[in-house]
Amino acid sequence: MSGTIYLVGAGPGAVDLLTLRAAALLGQAEVVLHDALVSPEVLALAPQAKLYNVGKRGGRPSTDQRFICRLLVRMGLRHRLVVRLKGGDPSLFGRAGEEIDACRAAGLPVVVVPGVSAGFAAAASLNASLTLRGVARSVTFVTPTVAKHGVESTAWADAAAAAETAVVYMGATHAERVRDELLVRGLPGARAVVFIENVSASNQRVIRGVLSELPDLAAQLGDGPALLIIGEAIAEARALAAAVAA
Amino acid sequence: MSGTIYLVGAGPGAVDLLTLRAAALLGQAEVVLHDALVSPEVLALAPQAKLYNVGKRGGRPSTDQRFICRLLVRMGLRHRLVVRLKGGDPSLFGRAGEEIDACRAAGLPVVVVPGVSAGFAAAASLNASLTLRGVARSVTFVTPTVAKHGVESTAWADAAAAAETAVVYMGATHAERVRDELLVRGLPGARAVVFIENVSASNQRVIRGVLSELPDLAAQLGDGPALLIIGEAIAEARALAAAVAA
Repeated sequence: MSGTIYLVGAGPGAVDLLTLRAAALLGQAEVVLHDALVSPEVLALAPQAKLYNVGKRGGRPSTDQRFICRLLVRMGLRHRLVVRLKGGDPSLFGRAGEEIDACRAAGLPVVVVPGVSAGFAAAASLNASLTLRGVARSVTFVTPTVAKHGVESTAWADAAAAAETAVVYMGATHAERVRDELLVRGLPGARAVVFIENVSASNQRVIRGVLSELPDLAAQLGDGPALLIIGEAIAEARALAAAVAA
Repeated sequence: MSGTIYLVGAGPGAVDLLTLRAAALLGQAEVVLHDALVSPEVLALAPQAKLYNVGKRGGRPSTDQRFICRLLVRMGLRHRLVVRLKGGDPSLFGRAGEEIDACRAAGLPVVVVPGVSAGFAAAASLNASLTLRGVARSVTFVTPTVAKHGVESTAWADAAAAAETAVVYMGATHAERVRDELLVRGLPGARAVVFIENVSASNQRVIRGVLSELPDLAAQLGDGPALLIIGEAIAEARALAAAVAA
């Protein structure tokens, strides 16, 4: 008796930012494998499910990706409906590719359910738009985390520098490097930046500044996961100026 | 008696890809201003609301943005709960900035509710990840639509070419230009591309190929809105090869 594996986006954190489809699947799930950052309120939507925390956190002891893939397949071979619940959207920095491949290799059907990525929830909470007529027509999502094989690629910095708005996941622990790589590619030190910690949660914090002071801003952050947005579209001054001018 | 304006992401199309928050707000809305592409099933979630279709479609007669902003403010001054329902996520190519500014200038509180952007739903429907270990660590969202003031910027092409995965909104009507601008920036003609028409709807279609044949692929599309994804992370061959090799 094998079943279907659903790779489901849990959204940015707040329980009501899950999709209706995600909530319905959690209600039917027999097993849920979830990331560390998924909240108890979200997991409460799966009252019948056996829960496995397979969370990984940058810089902390983490569950090996191969172990997660093996556990996912084992559960899929035994249960009708297995949900792999991932923070944000599964297809953005979620290692979904490896898990999809593992399920397919085992002959298990996989369905991916998209979710609201933290970058969008962060922009929404600032009442800001990532794109802005006359200011930003391109948005890049990157992560500066280094590959483990010793090869330090800076392709992420090329992509971030080429876009008018850059959303940097897991950027707080690499603030100095992010600043240096972007300045060397010609971005102005006065470019607007904002850190959003604990996006969409009740303890969300916002720290604003400019690119040149990125490490100082990062130092003000707490222990929560933080997202970084770089670009004039999210500059607070613009919206305020528009309001005053009207 | 004035109220609050909610700029709400309607998601990619399928009604169950709305967030729980969006569905709850629609259920309470007195007025809904919606895009043309929002489906009747989604609008049925707002049974008490007066509906205004203020939709704009690329290349077709469209409602002027200033008119939308004025209508939004007028409704906000008269009603307690007004929803401005936008396809996908409000902060990505949604002209949210102008509407937020208009509401603020009128002294009306604005709340933005993020949604699932079509790019994520498209990747999910392909069982693909936009990022992929060893292949893609950056994703850029762009639109090649030209500004109306005669200035033809190609910053969108710089951003798309610099990222490992590019998601191009409204790219089908500019397929030749997209191909040419990316080839001239050094992308290989054999780079994997995929058009997804009517993302997440029952009539979704997928057309795969490579960058050099982009105009021919676009010619196979129907009348529905189509999204373009460029990059090896979404190549079908990769996933199949992995399944076979296992």
